[in-house]
Amino acid sequence: MKEWYLKVRRRTEVICGPLELEDYSIQPSVDVSPPKWHLAHTTWFFEQFVLKAFVVDYKEFNSDFAYLFNSYYNNAGERVLRADRGMMTRPIVYEVLKYRQHVDKGMEAFLSLNPSKEQLDIIELGLNHEQQHQELLAYDIKYILGHQLTFPSYGSEFELKNSENGGFVAIKEGLYEIGYEGENFHFDNEEGRHKVYLYDFEIRKSLVTNGEWIAFIEAGGYENFNLWHSEGWDWVQSQETKAPMYWHYTKNEWHAYDMNGLKPLDFAKPVIHINLYEAYAYAEWKKMRLPTEAEWEVANMHFDWGQLWEWTNSSYLPYPGFKTAEGALGEYNGKFMVNQKVLKGGSVATPKGHTRKTYRNFFHPHLRWQFCGLRLVK
Amino acid sequence: MKEWYLKVRRRTEVICGPLELEDYSIQPSVDVSPPKWHLAHTTWFFEQFVLKAFVVDYKEFNSDFAYLFNSYYNNAGERVLRADRGMMTRPIVYEVLKYRQHVDKGMEAFLSLNPSKEQLDIIELGLNHEQQHQELLAYDIKYILGHQLTFPSYGSEFELKNSENGGFVAIKEGLYEIGYEGENFHFDNEEGRHKVYLYDFEIRKSLVTNGEWIAFIEAGGYENFNLWHSEGWDWVQSQETKAPMYWHYTKNEWHAYDMNGLKPLDFAKPVIHINLYEAYAYAEWKKMRLPTEAEWEVANMHFDWGQLWEWTNSSYLPYPGFKTAEGALGEYNGKFMVNQKVLKGGSVATPKGHTRKTYRNFFHPHLRWQFCGLRLVK
Amino acid sequence: MKEWYLKVRRRTEVICGPLELEDYSIQPSVDVSPPKWHLAHTTWFFEQFVLKAFVVDYKEFNSDFAYLFNSYYNNAGERVLRADRGMMTRPIVYEVLKYRQHVDKGMEAFLSLNPSKEQLDIIELGLNHEQQHQELLAYDIKYILGHQLTFPSYGSEFELKNSENGGFVAIKEGLYEIGYEGENFHFDNEEGRHKVYLYDFEIRKSLVTNGEWIAFIEAGGYENFNLWHSEGWDWVQSQETKAPMYWHYTKNEWHAYDMNGLKPLDFAKPVIHINLYEAYAYAEWKKMRLPTEAEWEVANMHFDWGQLWEWTNSSYLPYPGFKTAEGALGEYNGKFMVNQKVLKGGSVATPKGHTRKTYRNFFHPHLRWQFCGLRLVK
Amino acid sequence: MKEWYLKVRRRTEVICGPLELEDYSIQPSVDVSPPKWHLAHTTWFFEQFVLKAFVVDYKEFNSDFAYLFNSYYNNAGERVLRADRGMMTRPIVYEVLKYRQHVDKGMEAFLSLNPSKEQLDIIELGLNHEQQHQELLAYDIKYILGHQLTFPSYGSEFELKNSENGGFVAIKEGLYEIGYEGENFHFDNEEGRHKVYLYDFEIRKSLVTNGEWIAFIEAGGYENFNLWHSEGWDWVQSQETKAPMYWHYTKNEWHAYDMNGLKPLDFAKPVIHINLYEAYAYAEWKKMRLPTEAEWEVANMHFDWGQLWEWTNSSYLPYPGFKTAEGALGEYNGKFMVNQKVLKGGSVATPKGHTRKTYRNFFHPHLRWQFCGLRLVK
Repeated sequence: MKEWYLKVRRRTEVICGPLELEDYSIQPSVDVSPPKWHLAHTTWFFEQFVLKAFVVDYKEFNSDFAYLFNSYYNNAGERVLRADRGMMTRPIVYEVLKYRQHVDKGMEAFLSLNPSKEQLDIIELGLNHEQQHQELLAYDIKYILGHQLTFPSYGSEFELKNSENGGFVAIKEGLYEIGYEGENFHFDNEEGRHKVYLYDFEIRKSLVTNGEWIAFIEAGGYENFNLWHSEGWDWVQSQETKAPMYWHYTKNEWHAYDMNGLKPLDFAKPVIHINLYEAYAYAEWKKMRLPTEAEWEVANMHFDWGQLWEWTNSSYLPYPGFKTAEGALGEYNGKFMVNQKVLKGGSVATPKGHTRKTYRNFFHPHLRWQFCGLRLVK
Repeated sequence: MKEWYLKVRRRTEVICGPLELEDYSIQPSVDVSPPKWHLAHTTWFFEQFVLKAFVVDYKEFNSDFAYLFNSYYNNAGERVLRADRGMMTRPIVYEVLKYRQHVDKGMEAFLSLNPSKEQLDIIELGLNHEQQHQELLAYDIKYILGHQLTFPSYGSEFELKNSENGGFVAIKEGLYEIGYEGENFHFDNEEGRHKVYLYDFEIRKSLVTNGEWIAFIEAGGYENFNLWHSEGWDWVQSQETKAPMYWHYTKNEWHAYDMNGLKPLDFAKPVIHINLYEAYAYAEWKKMRLPTEAEWEVANMHFDWGQLWEWTNSSYLPYPGFKTAEGALGEYNGKFMVNQKVLKGGSVATPKGHTRKTYRNFFHPHLRWQFCGLRLVK
Repeated sequence: MKEWYLKVRRRTEVICGPLELEDYSIQPSVDVSPPKWHLAHTTWFFEQFVLKAFVVDYKEFNSDFAYLFNSYYNNAGERVLRADRGMMTRPIVYEVLKYRQHVDKGMEAFLSLNPSKEQLDIIELGLNHEQQHQELLAYDIKYILGHQLTFPSYGSEFELKNSENGGFVAIKEGLYEIGYEGENFHFDNEEGRHKVYLYDFEIRKSLVTNGEWIAFIEAGGYENFNLWHSEGWDWVQSQETKAPMYWHYTKNEWHAYDMNGLKPLDFAKPVIHINLYEAYAYAEWKKMRLPTEAEWEVANMHFDWGQLWEWTNSSYLPYPGFKTAEGALGEYNGKFMVNQKVLKGGSVATPKGHTRKTYRNFFHPHLRWQFCGLRLVK
Repeated sequence: MKEWYLKVRRRTEVICGPLELEDYSIQPSVDVSPPKWHLAHTTWFFEQFVLKAFVVDYKEFNSDFAYLFNSYYNNAGERVLRADRGMMTRPIVYEVLKYRQHVDKGMEAFLSLNPSKEQLDIIELGLNHEQQHQELLAYDIKYILGHQLTFPSYGSEFELKNSENGGFVAIKEGLYEIGYEGENFHFDNEEGRHKVYLYDFEIRKSLVTNGEWIAFIEAGGYENFNLWHSEGWDWVQSQETKAPMYWHYTKNEWHAYDMNGLKPLDFAKPVIHINLYEAYAYAEWKKMRLPTEAEWEVANMHFDWGQLWEWTNSSYLPYPGFKTAEGALGEYNGKFMVNQKVLKGGSVATPKGHTRKTYRNFFHPHLRWQFCGLRLVK
């Protein structure tokens, strides 16, 4: 476990490597957190739930940090409002990196002392938690850099592969099972393997591409209210949306910011940065629909996935028998089970080994800064 | 059909009977429509989709009304913004009543001429639509009167019966069917009878009462974030909510406005005017949960219902095979299938014969001016 | 005094005569009050400051009304938020008229009993207060009717005369006096006649006309930021302003709503419903400027005035020696002396005899629903 | 001039010396600009109005910077919205410092070539402009550091001296002159020396102190609406204001953040960081008033000033004969002459030699992050 611990922790810092110091503290949107905050918050998790909980003589790095770097664990005390994370210039980045070292040293020592199964479970959760923030870091870094006038390059790490249209695969009506089964790490929201009855459907083997999305735009997709949810249409109108996030129409051509700069759109790549409203409207336009999470989970062995999180039309709701755990860690999943949609799969920004077919990612329907795309069902 | 048409139409006017003229034009919240608007909008439906569609020489009452009294049918042209409905002092109520007479006369004539099945279907839809607005009228009238300093009385028409706790009924795990089956009127969202697999559950025979809710308040339910969805907790804090809508703590006692005035709370009545967040928090506190819509529909013959719409934890989503109809009437249901929850049953304000066990009512989680209550599952 | 009292009181009701009952309770903008509210609030003034203060056995009409119809007198207790005045459907208009009768009867009796000088002063203030609300009623009624889709007619009572350009009159540099002098009624803000030193200026004998304003529009006045205050330019851009309030460009022509309906613009009439930002920008465009209140007051015998309140570039500030009176009536003027501009003169909606050359009217720079126009200085 | 140029430019950088790199890019309030932005914007002034205007072969450092670092000169082209200045992580601070070097090198060369009087005038304006930003830098740095949880120390540079109460000085009624007279640098808004007629007044020799302010708080000053402007009272209530900015009540004692950390309040120091509403309420409580700018200017030789900018009750309006200059530099002052108040004097953050008795500083009434205090008149 110690080796894995150190590997995950180093990876977080490596992701921040290409940043300038100025990029670390900024919060350009309420949904985006400053990279410095991610570095500290993931560390706070281990300090709060492991070191302060189990190490009698643990010396806290800085008692203010609990307040500054708690995210949403009400049980763990007061915290900075989400929208104010970008106000913090202090502690400086260097101080946060020292905080990481301090906690890592404590954790290394703790891991050498033969922790109990229960303690190891918390650490495993902490590492999965940090991996989730590694993915959010990719989203947030893209947002920060992609909203600079100069479209600076981060590098080519999170590049997408081309999406080749391989047709549809048909799944037969019947009773299936979904949900996690096994002994390995998984989140509480995946538990409760259970039967679902599905009807015949066909699911596409590939994601919708940029080229296909251009066709939607050119067919007036963003101007035809018949294709949209009522709320989606309000969103289109209030935001004056005309294309996915990071698209810019310039020099008579669509360009997109990928993390390598602003470039002419690559038609063969899967479309990325569309929200649920857009995904739904596109499917309506094609006279198809989005998969449910059960359909996706049942069919997933018939197609490649892992490039982009895939919107489903399933709401994020508890599986049969779901129980919220006691204490702060019980706030991990259950309290978000309203008004959000499930996304399945994984993305190029998902740490290797972090996701699985039963993984239930979730976002609000209007959000699209995350690495997400669209697979159709008919 | 003609008789039924006239009966429904008269009923709408009767509901408005106890109002003062001043009560007709006001919009005290974006979700509440002025009664005058309901009177006109339900009439517009028949003018727009029947008389103007099928009667060659029909003379429109006033060509501005299509703009003024369209609700959300984008296909039927431009419309007044929902939030501006309370700006309209003209046409005056008298003019709207003349509009109703004008359209009713046209409809009577039309109904005498042996309309086609397709035409009768639209009229039936129009009458069901008007019944839905009759129920909304009750909500909106209660809101308007209940927010006057003087708590004026409307009368005793929509009174609730006592809710007597009769324990729980157990339902066995297995494959069940839900959704509409039959030949009578129903909405498109109920169609597609389909199999669902349910697990053992017990559902309470009675609704949660005011007395039980007081216990929740006194146990600190509105101050304990562990019970709430994250969004629910934000709602409690930003609204400083301490009780259901229409409750007032005065003279050392909880009072509630029912449509008959402000009165000491009746402990034996079912609790009304709680939103989904509150319903969820209450269930968490009881270590129980809300039913899903499938559970409710499967179990409904084992309990009385029809006093209040009952929150389920199911999101309002399409049934397998759901298809949006072409044209304006296709906007009726499908485009609202995001971010809303299903409520089952019916209420004292639901017109007789309007609802059925497969009926899918839906509201946003934060809303509570509607006549809604809570049934628990364990 | 009794005769004058009754005359003023009747006049308020006459102004409301052309309204439909539906027009009385609406508040289509935060700055507009419902006519019903004006009817009640002006009555409350006499009940609060005369009858309840001086008549021992006065029987209050309804004890809720003090809360409902107080405007901004914090000393007189709690009050309905300004923005919520349009929520009140109760008391109904008929009840408010009975309230007026009740108070008038009390006042008539009181006036028959030889009130003291101090008491008469309060009544005189109350009548001037009511006259101010008569003028506001005209503004608010115009706003309510002018924002109906059908542009209903109120009648021709408040019509403007043509404005004939008679050139400029020159005033010589020197020491002048402004401020009220005499024994008649006046507001506390006019007191403190004092010396001001003025420099040579020329002031136009007539107001700027609609025809001149068209020239400003056609010269791109609303698109040229150089002409505007920084805040004015923000206002133009955020509101997308292209013309004065109530102007509509339709059928290839500018129209304006006057209280008689929507009509082609009359070029010879003075321009009305421009705010200070617009007045300033127009003057900049003409390479002239607005008068100060001292200049206006010194020069006023050289031109006709009384059609429209005239923007000055003077801020509404205390005259030398200004003292706020003790008690609730001390809230009448002083507490508004920040961020507002003085307007001089009077308008066609000002009750006869109400204004005088020393009168200091005041509004915020962005407002333009009042009856205001523009006179230039060079 | 070259020597002065370099001295001013270095001073700006010295002011930023104590900052961490993280402090440079943040905008914690719409009125606060990031220090990096000040560094670049003051440089842009010289590049835009001198080097690009007069040096034929000048090579622009980066053509994006004109867009990024223009503040409000509409004539100088498009610009970043004020509220978005804190979104810019790029260019990094190092790049901005290189920009400063590049422009300084160009300016040094230009200054060696015997510039014309007109060119020197622009440079002199640019240096006064930079000095104004030096003062704003002090405000903004205090705001950034003072809103960190850890109250980091900047150092003791901007410390206030004690304010010793020396009574009042009386000024006689009469005709006085105010406004700039002379040949040295001054802003266009000070021009137009002119006569004003003043009445007898007495003005205090010292500023109001923290100790006196405590008395105001303890007397319920923030709870007594009679003392406040109507808008001021709205501000107190909506912000729940209980004390000047940077005051914290902790450990049973008032503390204030000065730039050296959070410390127990020093009663002998002048009160700082109150807005016009607070200054007015305090004066009302003392039954005194604020000076007008003319009173201040006439009386200023009788007291010490220069610790804090002093609120006057005069609105920021043009002096007789004020003319807006043509072109971008004409936007410097005139377009702000609405809704702002004049402050006289200078502060510990005002660069030496920058201010004078005729200087007209101005801020909106609600603002208080600037270094401002209060002198009373009776």
